[in-house]
Amino acid sequence: MIRILVAFSTTFGTTEKFARAVAEGAGMVEGARVTLKPAAEVTTEDLLEADAHIFGTPIHMGSIDWQIKKLIDTVAAWLWGPNRLVGKVGAVFTSSSGIGNAGSGAELAMVALLAHFAEQGMILVPLPKNTPGYFTNGLHWGPTAITGEHEGKPIGVPDEQLLVARHHGMNVARVAAAVAGKQLLNP
Amino acid sequence: MIRILVAFSTTFGTTEKFARAVAEGAGMVEGARVTLKPAAEVTTEDLLEADAHIFGTPIHMGSIDWQIKKLIDTVAAWLWGPNRLVGKVGAVFTSSSGIGNAGSGAELAMVALLAHFAEQGMILVPLPKNTPGYFTNGLHWGPTAITGEHEGKPIGVPDEQLLVARHHGMNVARVAAAVAGKQLLNP
Amino acid sequence: MIRILVAFSTTFGTTEKFARAVAEGAGMVEGARVTLKPAAEVTTEDLLEADAHIFGTPIHMGSIDWQIKKLIDTVAAWLWGPNRLVGKVGAVFTSSSGIGNAGSGAELAMVALLAHFAEQGMILVPLPKNTPGYFTNGLHWGPTAITGEHEGKPIGVPDEQLLVARHHGMNVARVAAAVAGKQLLNP
Amino acid sequence: MIRILVAFSTTFGTTEKFARAVAEGAGMVEGARVTLKPAAEVTTEDLLEADAHIFGTPIHMGSIDWQIKKLIDTVAAWLWGPNRLVGKVGAVFTSSSGIGNAGSGAELAMVALLAHFAEQGMILVPLPKNTPGYFTNGLHWGPTAITGEHEGKPIGVPDEQLLVARHHGMNVARVAAAVAGKQLLNP
Repeated sequence: MIRILVAFSTTFGTTEKFARAVAEGAGMVEGARVTLKPAAEVTTEDLLEADAHIFGTPIHMGSIDWQIKKLIDTVAAWLWGPNRLVGKVGAVFTSSSGIGNAGSGAELAMVALLAHFAEQGMILVPLPKNTPGYFTNGLHWGPTAITGEHEGKPIGVPDEQLLVARHHGMNVARVAAAVAGKQLLNP
Repeated sequence: MIRILVAFSTTFGTTEKFARAVAEGAGMVEGARVTLKPAAEVTTEDLLEADAHIFGTPIHMGSIDWQIKKLIDTVAAWLWGPNRLVGKVGAVFTSSSGIGNAGSGAELAMVALLAHFAEQGMILVPLPKNTPGYFTNGLHWGPTAITGEHEGKPIGVPDEQLLVARHHGMNVARVAAAVAGKQLLNP
Repeated sequence: MIRILVAFSTTFGTTEKFARAVAEGAGMVEGARVTLKPAAEVTTEDLLEADAHIFGTPIHMGSIDWQIKKLIDTVAAWLWGPNRLVGKVGAVFTSSSGIGNAGSGAELAMVALLAHFAEQGMILVPLPKNTPGYFTNGLHWGPTAITGEHEGKPIGVPDEQLLVARHHGMNVARVAAAVAGKQLLNP
Repeated sequence: MIRILVAFSTTFGTTEKFARAVAEGAGMVEGARVTLKPAAEVTTEDLLEADAHIFGTPIHMGSIDWQIKKLIDTVAAWLWGPNRLVGKVGAVFTSSSGIGNAGSGAELAMVALLAHFAEQGMILVPLPKNTPGYFTNGLHWGPTAITGEHEGKPIGVPDEQLLVARHHGMNVARVAAAVAGKQLLNP
């Protein structure tokens, strides 16, 4: 069995909806068991027992939401010292307003989440261009939901954008199955 | 008089067209004199006599074009040792395919160009959200042209996207006028 | 009069000590008045009345501390919509463990703080190589304190490292004096 | 058999020496066959036949050397369209002057090389903290040589710094062996 943890922070529910699709995709891989949680509820045990972590965040002021960083700094960071997450698999996703048509900061937000996984010594899974849905919602570091606004209010992520999220979840689960328990890094 | 250098590399002409609009905008500021050149033709003298440098690049494989980096590494780098560009003004722009609707790497490409200006000790001008054209072609680090494809060929940047480029040029020229010749950094 | 806000988060007091030196330097520029505050105490009024913001953070897991991001997301972000900070000046600093002798993530942490200032439309002041103290504590994006460890405990930042911090504060205050109140960006 | 390609650009020979150690490490893994080449000599066939690519660069003006970018833009980029490198393994290393004690731009240089691998849809191997040699020459994205200067000339990388490079090579080869030929991404 392969365990996948999908953790997210969300402001208006967009990132949560995208996170559900990532989790759904991961769960479609044979032998995968998925835990989906808001960042504030993730425990040390969740991090330890998962073979892969997939973290997602809305973009706020050009980088990650403070709440997912609080998970990283106050829960995950304690596992860094004793090298407890080395060799697990990490991947990311975001949701963005789409303002400007150039990512609105999605790239550095994704890289910041990946930086944490790299610090933990985790193998990173990007988003290949041949992933279904990439051409509407893909960055090479991971998929992104693009929400619109209607009369000044965010209108969430349309269902057709969830395709790329599901495939990202599947990809990560497959990589986790290939490397889990093998102690490939500094055995 | 304030001198502005706009340097670009270009693959299919898109970045050049956008660069012309940046230069045009800079030239609209009173007292500004603009030099527009492909990266391969920029000289040490061009870099030294300009009060502001605005560099632009297409996005290739998630970062800047090798040709603009060659300008940085083989011409500009020699001015870093003797601190010859400290206190000048720097700004950037890109053109991107738009694939994925999340910047296609525009952000790290812009930050890489800004990193060079920071190394040179130059004051950096970003792209404020209230810049005309931001909502269709803006990232906080600078404006970006978004080209489309038609039957597998890039179709260039439509004229309406040039608005943000012109205003970016104006902004940079005004900042250059305010700080030029004042030795604000480490006098 | 020029007003400078220095805001920081701190874990063991290192970033606070470095922040005091930045504030001290800024205050040495004629006409400058400096406010120094922990991130958690910064108010909307502090952000609005300052001509320059200098933010500092320790590095945690390869990026900024969640507490300074909380300031950005829950206080500063509200000023982004109405473009209230456009044209002010921004600059950054970090403190790092020094593990690995390659920044330990200081660069992306600095760029994340700068991304916020860019989103706000603020002019960015980097750290020129000819700043006193650069060769021991400088990155082109800003200065960094390098703390050591002794028997597993951080031993703080030695006084000689504060030189670069003071000069950074002076540089930022001088740039703020040159651009304050001029409406250079999108007037 | 697992094939590993180590490609580098070099200015004074430092990065080449570090690259040799990476290659040496990779070759110590059972079944691994290593090709070590300067960036300018790498061919399309080299890229296609390798199961893992490890790219290294000196830091110039805060980012990667133009010569390794030329390899990426003019050789590797052609394999992106037809998704030929999807599912291979990628990893990076740098050599830096060490000026400033905060990476001198090593982090964004590593991330730029990783961005290319992510664009190609390759699985990324970072540098875990428990890698031997990390505490003197490690960043979470990869290992770095730190050269010194003596009377204004670079003095290269001392032999003791090569430890982390060798282990990085071994880690990458082991991950490549675990995922090669399995079509884990978008099968």
